[in-house]
Amino acid sequence: MAISLYKSSVPIFVQFLTALSAVLDKAAAHAEARKIDPSVLLNTRLTPDMFPLLRQVRAATDHAINASGRLAGVDLPTFSNNEATIPELKERIAKTIDFLRGLKAAQIDGAEEKEIKITFPSGATREFTGQSLLLNNSLPNFYFHCTTAYDILRQCGVELGKRDFMGTPVQM
Amino acid sequence: MAISLYKSSVPIFVQFLTALSAVLDKAAAHAEARKIDPSVLLNTRLTPDMFPLLRQVRAATDHAINASGRLAGVDLPTFSNNEATIPELKERIAKTIDFLRGLKAAQIDGAEEKEIKITFPSGATREFTGQSLLLNNSLPNFYFHCTTAYDILRQCGVELGKRDFMGTPVQM
Repeated sequence: MAISLYKSSVPIFVQFLTALSAVLDKAAAHAEARKIDPSVLLNTRLTPDMFPLLRQVRAATDHAINASGRLAGVDLPTFSNNEATIPELKERIAKTIDFLRGLKAAQIDGAEEKEIKITFPSGATREFTGQSLLLNNSLPNFYFHCTTAYDILRQCGVELGKRDFMGTPVQM
Repeated sequence: MAISLYKSSVPIFVQFLTALSAVLDKAAAHAEARKIDPSVLLNTRLTPDMFPLLRQVRAATDHAINASGRLAGVDLPTFSNNEATIPELKERIAKTIDFLRGLKAAQIDGAEEKEIKITFPSGATREFTGQSLLLNNSLPNFYFHCTTAYDILRQCGVELGKRDFMGTPVQM
């Protein structure tokens, strides 16, 4: 017995992206209650050479899509990459979740040893197996960006707790 | 074919704890170069009601130990929980890595559906399967605390990049 590659990826991404979308709702409510322009929150960074919140959210969706889509061997959805409002970011998350929900376990299970070559924006390439892509690269990066998005909003004073980050496990 | 529960847990925890220990080395060097008391870094929080860096590090080791030890069904190592210096935290991480390296794949593989009941500090209890404990609880919490430790040090101006967070995959 072992863990299904599908169950280690798709439902996990859906759980934490759903939670991230709800965290953005709380950010929107916080901004409205305090008459803060939501774009101030979206452009907040923990330090000048880290991505602002809106890029953290985009990166989280990218890692979920890139991992799941490559494991399944399907075309990846694309985005404008110029989302600049909370509704636009929530739309991007929703589109990502739709894509993930459209993938079947049979498309992903079995891709554990599949060779996947990735070309990074820098031009560098790296070869993974399906399993190493998910475990050593995509999940840690995904959690990194979800956590940092949460951390930025906590620092901005949005009332959030760990449960908001964790969300609720989904049955898929 | 599928993913081994062992490979989804122990080598991943070792990879990111090794990276976290090296991140603390960079924090120590940063403090020394700038004549900062390292305890200032260790007590820095992103916001007053979040844990400071030293508690983020302790929590990361706790999630790695609790998940792996419970999957294997062995006694968990304990700590003083009053580590207050970078060397003491690095010692805690080293002890955690030793514990993890002492676990064999055969002790963990097969625990996917094992029933594991956890009593939280609040007194609440929650039942998991081995797989749900790892995927839905321990890994996300582990990454949350590793990321937040990194985020705190980035905000303190320690020169770190994503590679410091990611570390290097380990063969086990």
